[in-house]
Amino acid sequence: MVVAVIGGGQLARMMTPAATALGVRLRVLVEGPDVSAAQVVVDAPVGAPREVADVLELVRGGADGPRADVLTFEHEHVGADVLAAVAELGVPVRPSAQALLHARDKLAMRARLAELGVPGPRWAPVPDADALTAFLAQMGGRAVVKTARGGYDGKGVRVVTSADQVADWFDAAASGGPELLAEEAVDFVRELAVLLARRPSGEVRAWPVVETVQRDGVCAEVVAPAPDLDPAVARAAVQAATTVAEGLDVTGVLAVEMFEVSGPDGSRVLVNELAMRPHNSGHWTIDGAVTSQFEQHLRAVLDLPLGDPGARAPHAVMVNVLGSSRERLTDALPQVLADPHLRVHLYGKGVRPGRKLGHVTAVGDDVADLRARARAGAALIQGTADLAG
Amino acid sequence: MVVAVIGGGQLARMMTPAATALGVRLRVLVEGPDVSAAQVVVDAPVGAPREVADVLELVRGGADGPRADVLTFEHEHVGADVLAAVAELGVPVRPSAQALLHARDKLAMRARLAELGVPGPRWAPVPDADALTAFLAQMGGRAVVKTARGGYDGKGVRVVTSADQVADWFDAAASGGPELLAEEAVDFVRELAVLLARRPSGEVRAWPVVETVQRDGVCAEVVAPAPDLDPAVARAAVQAATTVAEGLDVTGVLAVEMFEVSGPDGSRVLVNELAMRPHNSGHWTIDGAVTSQFEQHLRAVLDLPLGDPGARAPHAVMVNVLGSSRERLTDALPQVLADPHLRVHLYGKGVRPGRKLGHVTAVGDDVADLRARARAGAALIQGTADLAG
Ligand SMILES: Nc1ncnc2c1ncn2[C@@H]1O[C@H](COP(=O)(O)OP(=O)(O)OP(=O)(O)O)[C@@H](O)[C@H]1O
Ligand SMILES: Nc1ncnc2c1ncn2[C@@H]1O[C@H](COP(=O)(O)OP(=O)(O)OP(=O)(O)O)[C@@H](O)[C@H]1O
Ligand SMILES: [Mg+2]
Ligand SMILES: [Mg+2]
Repeated sequence: MVVAVIGGGQLARMMTPAATALGVRLRVLVEGPDVSAAQVVVDAPVGAPREVADVLELVRGGADGPRADVLTFEHEHVGADVLAAVAELGVPVRPSAQALLHARDKLAMRARLAELGVPGPRWAPVPDADALTAFLAQMGGRAVVKTARGGYDGKGVRVVTSADQVADWFDAAASGGPELLAEEAVDFVRELAVLLARRPSGEVRAWPVVETVQRDGVCAEVVAPAPDLDPAVARAAVQAATTVAEGLDVTGVLAVEMFEVSGPDGSRVLVNELAMRPHNSGHWTIDGAVTSQFEQHLRAVLDLPLGDPGARAPHAVMVNVLGSSRERLTDALPQVLADPHLRVHLYGKGVRPGRKLGHVTAVGDDVADLRARARAGAALIQGTADLAG
Repeated sequence: MVVAVIGGGQLARMMTPAATALGVRLRVLVEGPDVSAAQVVVDAPVGAPREVADVLELVRGGADGPRADVLTFEHEHVGADVLAAVAELGVPVRPSAQALLHARDKLAMRARLAELGVPGPRWAPVPDADALTAFLAQMGGRAVVKTARGGYDGKGVRVVTSADQVADWFDAAASGGPELLAEEAVDFVRELAVLLARRPSGEVRAWPVVETVQRDGVCAEVVAPAPDLDPAVARAAVQAATTVAEGLDVTGVLAVEMFEVSGPDGSRVLVNELAMRPHNSGHWTIDGAVTSQFEQHLRAVLDLPLGDPGARAPHAVMVNVLGSSRERLTDALPQVLADPHLRVHLYGKGVRPGRKLGHVTAVGDDVADLRARARAGAALIQGTADLAG
């Protein structure tokens, strides 16, 4: 079995253990010969996801390769023309181009979620400054503006109180850049994420609902399961995510980011955004769940039975390692690995400030203790805490 | 960090997930471009472990390097001259040539274990038929004859009642083949194995003692921990293995195969043989222990802190997938993965009768149930049970 993957970052890299175990050959389209996944995938052609020829070559396997059984992704930035060309070869694209559009375009996503009756913040397309000014007036003067496409790690998200604060984005949109939408600035209690997998034959399995903590727009920590979450809210969250998966005919792993908001009758959830691939909110599953999101994604896109998404221990805390000043992350291993509760994952990426370079997971019984350990480990690796000696 | 590994079989293959997570680059000397590890290791030069030039190139890293931080092994069939040449480069060899000798040569092993006072079967070197005849007389007419070197999976082990039953081996020995030894044919209750890791700085961590079941001289099943093992016997087993590790200055993973024998004062253990590398008796640790033997081996040879060898669940049962008639093992995945208790590991090897092609592990609470599930899964994959539909 051959799975073709578009994108050579850490998400493709972390697919390798499950692929190796299941006897699945990965063929990954990488951005360059040294990127994260290229370091650990034997069959890793360099190419561009927007080039039809590169993607067709990836799927066909070059001169000697066997043709891929399925094409999947570690990011959403792939054009519909490319996917149509692959589909024409008879190779399934999972998730489909049709589904993927809703992970790539926040305007399309908002419109479709509204049709499906999935709860979300109030929102509006804002084709121009006047539209945004009108929306701001309805929202009491404050809103979140987003580029419909191309955003990640909070780039493409701005809280504004007047339209001129996104004048540059309107200019960009006018000259072919991404369209804009505005959302109610949600006064959330916290952020949650539901991660599930769905296979073409319809089976859906969800991991426990997690709490995610963003800092400067970037995922910093994930706690699984979300502490003290009302079971009814957890059920509603999984229900909303399942509605999305089924309504959009998603195959593979789907991450649904949500806001937990408190109301007169207790908490409820509003959907923030979607990712149709393994997601940072699911990295804890490698060490904390029976089946990791990476294995589950491969199973799902190959239409194999899904694995048990149950937790292996009462709690898991995942903390991202973000780029700072330390150049050689492995210098911290002697100290970090001395904590028997920590599981370390490095991505082999060049250090840049704020860049996701790895993560640390602590699995056990006491959330506060696990959080402290995972934070300490990540700080040592990234160099925001000094090494002893 | 670069770890050079000699041997491209499944043991090297299964080192890849831990290496990837820890940011360790593996460079594996493989027997051919398509062997098990070569399929999943980017840096996998083809070469022979007995060729000094090939191993030096492996350690130096060819034209573009970098030089390895340590050289280790997935099998013992490496000459002392080769290891001396590597040591001369200043690259540590772990385990050392001196230690490794005792995993490669059963005569050297028996002699050293006797010096260390580690309990074992009665034994004698048998340079010729007369020596074996004399040993047989002492043993009541029955003994196990072994080739001192080159044996694996029971090839090189014969139960005999007269010296002419190994006439071929004596002939081979006379013309440069491996020397022979004879052992008491132990009437064991069952076979056990102790797996531990030791790092150069001295730290030793042992996994729970397991029961191993051999069929036709090949490891068929492993149950962790060994059911109903007397805690005193378990302690004695770990003590014996620790004595070996320290006495032989082993670094990396050490597997000590043992016989459990019953006596007037209860059970005791006798050491059968040693392996200084990850071992089939430890495959359950991938899914059943906090730290897998493959991660622990990398930590140990890099002199990093050892991980927690504790079990994640009350029981784990591992069953080997052995070659039979089925050609495409992945054909069974739709059926096998439907059992949520099974974890499947395929090695990407060509099918040959009796060859180890993969393994299946079941982790949970009920040993009998786990054993039945793991056996059923392995039978489906290897083709000794028919697929439904
Ligand atoms: N409507 C909103 N109200 C309040 N906060 C919001 C809103 N939308 C986004 N945010 C905040 O900004 C963060 C990033 O927003 P969003 O997830 O839409 O952007 P992104 O760049 O696509 O994200 P990612 O980092 O997941 O790729 C959210 O996690 C949340 O903290
Ligand atoms: N002295 C003995 N008495 C009884 N049975 C023995 C004895 N030595 C070996 N055996 C049986 O033969 C099996 C294989 O023996 P041994 O482990 O020495 O051979 P090997 O080929 O090196 O093994 P491996 O399969 O571990 O590579 C043992 O697991 C055991 O079942
Ligand atoms: Mg987001
Ligand atoms: Mg043996």
